[in-house]
Amino acid sequence: MKNFVLIAFAFLSAPVCFSQGDDSTMIKKISDEILVNGKAYDNLRHLTKRIGARLSGSPQMVKAEKWGLQLMQESGADKAWLQPCMVPHWVRGGKEKADVLFNGALKGARNVLLFRKQLDVLALGNSEGTKNKDVSAKVVLVNSFDDLEKKKDSIKGTIVFYNYKFNQSYVNPFFAYRDAGAYRGSGPSRAAKYGALAVIVRSLSGSTDNNPHTGATRYDSAYAKIPALAVGLRDADWLSNQLQENKVISLTIKNNAHFLPDTIGNNVIGELTGSEFPNEIITIGGHFDSWDPGEGAHDDGAGCMQTVEILRAFKTIGYKPKRTIRFVLFANEENGLRGGNKYAEEAKTKNETNIYALESDAGGFTPRSFGFTMSEEQFQKVMQWKPLIAPYGCSEFTRGGGGADIGPLGRAFPTTALAGLAPDPQRYFDVHHARNDIFENVNKRELELGAVNMAALIYLIDKYGL
Amino acid sequence: MKNFVLIAFAFLSAPVCFSQGDDSTMIKKISDEILVNGKAYDNLRHLTKRIGARLSGSPQMVKAEKWGLQLMQESGADKAWLQPCMVPHWVRGGKEKADVLFNGALKGARNVLLFRKQLDVLALGNSEGTKNKDVSAKVVLVNSFDDLEKKKDSIKGTIVFYNYKFNQSYVNPFFAYRDAGAYRGSGPSRAAKYGALAVIVRSLSGSTDNNPHTGATRYDSAYAKIPALAVGLRDADWLSNQLQENKVISLTIKNNAHFLPDTIGNNVIGELTGSEFPNEIITIGGHFDSWDPGEGAHDDGAGCMQTVEILRAFKTIGYKPKRTIRFVLFANEENGLRGGNKYAEEAKTKNETNIYALESDAGGFTPRSFGFTMSEEQFQKVMQWKPLIAPYGCSEFTRGGGGADIGPLGRAFPTTALAGLAPDPQRYFDVHHARNDIFENVNKRELELGAVNMAALIYLIDKYGL
Repeated sequence: MKNFVLIAFAFLSAPVCFSQGDDSTMIKKISDEILVNGKAYDNLRHLTKRIGARLSGSPQMVKAEKWGLQLMQESGADKAWLQPCMVPHWVRGGKEKADVLFNGALKGARNVLLFRKQLDVLALGNSEGTKNKDVSAKVVLVNSFDDLEKKKDSIKGTIVFYNYKFNQSYVNPFFAYRDAGAYRGSGPSRAAKYGALAVIVRSLSGSTDNNPHTGATRYDSAYAKIPALAVGLRDADWLSNQLQENKVISLTIKNNAHFLPDTIGNNVIGELTGSEFPNEIITIGGHFDSWDPGEGAHDDGAGCMQTVEILRAFKTIGYKPKRTIRFVLFANEENGLRGGNKYAEEAKTKNETNIYALESDAGGFTPRSFGFTMSEEQFQKVMQWKPLIAPYGCSEFTRGGGGADIGPLGRAFPTTALAGLAPDPQRYFDVHHARNDIFENVNKRELELGAVNMAALIYLIDKYGL
Repeated sequence: MKNFVLIAFAFLSAPVCFSQGDDSTMIKKISDEILVNGKAYDNLRHLTKRIGARLSGSPQMVKAEKWGLQLMQESGADKAWLQPCMVPHWVRGGKEKADVLFNGALKGARNVLLFRKQLDVLALGNSEGTKNKDVSAKVVLVNSFDDLEKKKDSIKGTIVFYNYKFNQSYVNPFFAYRDAGAYRGSGPSRAAKYGALAVIVRSLSGSTDNNPHTGATRYDSAYAKIPALAVGLRDADWLSNQLQENKVISLTIKNNAHFLPDTIGNNVIGELTGSEFPNEIITIGGHFDSWDPGEGAHDDGAGCMQTVEILRAFKTIGYKPKRTIRFVLFANEENGLRGGNKYAEEAKTKNETNIYALESDAGGFTPRSFGFTMSEEQFQKVMQWKPLIAPYGCSEFTRGGGGADIGPLGRAFPTTALAGLAPDPQRYFDVHHARNDIFENVNKRELELGAVNMAALIYLIDKYGL
């Protein structure tokens, strides 16, 4: 591409200019501050490179909370504090392994040539370990839960390999994630029900690499808690092929994951106190904890650093909110939601008036839309602001939306309106819960634009109420 | 992010279902074929990794044309051929250099400590070289053309350093590119007018790295053709700072770029011949040539492989177009447009009926919109199809759009409707004309979705005409 003139860009066309002149001007001012002088990217670099992954209970989480509090203060919060809560303390306990013993003889050959292949695996979050022992067993290939039911009589004493694939025909990969998610969540217990010793689960991703993707599993207390590992996609394809050719002799796994006693975690909260309606609270946030293989860059360092950036930008341009805005870096979204629960619980105890909460937890990608959970009347009001925000990327406003961390607030206060930022979803599951969820995979402009769109929405809600 | 349910996605919501039932079904079928069985990504890997960058006149371009023709045939073209045209043959002639001699003494120190720093530079496309000699001179910092005019009396015998910055406040970086583009295009001649020996130009990018970005410069025949180099952003900032502190002694450049005689290039054309209106021609394409520092992955290997993918998908699902569809990989967009001109010229000579042309040349990023250059009546017709295409990403249709390669066709046939695919623009100028425009920076799904959206549009235009 050399010439600009012949290419059209629908959204984002040059001068941002509407009848709502003052608002348009203010949003442009916010946008300029974030796109020209933004600190979200540098802050994310610090969080990911200086601190790293932030599993609940880990030393990095403690370090992050301390730094986050300082960052809230430096970014101009009127008040900033830590809100403690007990969090689960699951640890990976060293590198897990999964070795396949297989017959590498050519097809049709009479002889047996034994080889060993190491699969790229990661224990699923909350998984039990093998107590530092090797567990060796026959592997049963299970392509779906229907397949499991068919094979239920041959599961006992084996390791179940769930190979349910991400459905690439969904245009939005979040639908593929929802579709395949049950294998990670309830797959281990469903296999344990039939006597499996352990499971390995095809990673919830449609990526082109072999990185395994972790994420929480949930044991059903009715069955044995068996070790559960995620396996990379290429290795999953390889293993599936080998099993179909009856080449696999056995699988040996080791996984030292275990729980330590619950420990203290903290929501990190910064506040700009409202000048006219200080008792009306608007919450904006992401979650500060992350899974451990990468750096928690997109999930959800991005949402956290966007949150702080909005605070910084408001303060820098001298915007004084009418209502109280709380900027929250939630604890323990990934394996407990204790931070979100605590935040809602305390709000309930204090009988606060929470009018609105917005979450960013779908990656620091280019912003495309907002989803809203609110009354029809409120939604119609919000829809009037769409022309003001669309030029910055979120050109679609839809019903239904929020986020895990603000969910408890919504349940505690049924009148609190909720919303979630929906960035472009195509790259999210390439990095989600994997070792490549690192700073280098976040684009500065895309990250910043997410903050711009959220800031614009928060500004309008603060100014006009809901 | 662990839970799906609370996050909303405006566009792309699950079942794609409209009143235009048959069309919706057909578009879903096309989408499934491309997203599930797509070959665009593997083909792009071949093009970038096995062939590489494809400057007009280079051996790689010849190799690419041969492979492209074979690919058209394998992908199911009813006919495929090469359309020759003469192309310019500019060569870089080995690695260029730009060394700064500067005083590295601490600020305020009396002594002078001489250091040499090598800047990361690339000759601008079409640039003259220094004929294998070193050119050393004083450097003049020029921040804008206004600044140049102010300093015009002190330019003679110097090297001008244009440090005009990408304006990050534009939400769409294409506006920043248009804004800064004149420094690359006409900067060298404007400096030569005042007697400069050479220029170095801040790269046209807002990226966070130091990669220089090449691209075509255009000499004004009224002035000397002086050597011109692009410099990486970090080095540009460094040099600007040093110059403002009067630390720079001199700059020495070497650049062996030069032109060889024009040579033969080819448009690679595949055709599905129309079953009902074979004389009505629809053209879809991208450009096969690329600048030389990277692999021409986004610019425009992506558009080319999307073009072939649409042919492959139509053929695979058994779609027989009513009209003739031509899939064109254009020669020489970057430094001549000879391929686009040839295509239009031959169409004119043969008095063809070209009803529509669509180009993809803004990167293989997630698709967001289409821009159309056509009559109001045609645009209203196209707008009726928007609900069918929006679920796949292009949720905005705007007036104005096309592409460099199909521009000559539009000028030759004023009634030919033109359109351009506009993907998300945020990452384009991070890689544009730079050494990081490589396969690894293209996302499989984003690339494929571009093809899906274009295929849907072509299908509708073929079926209903314009």
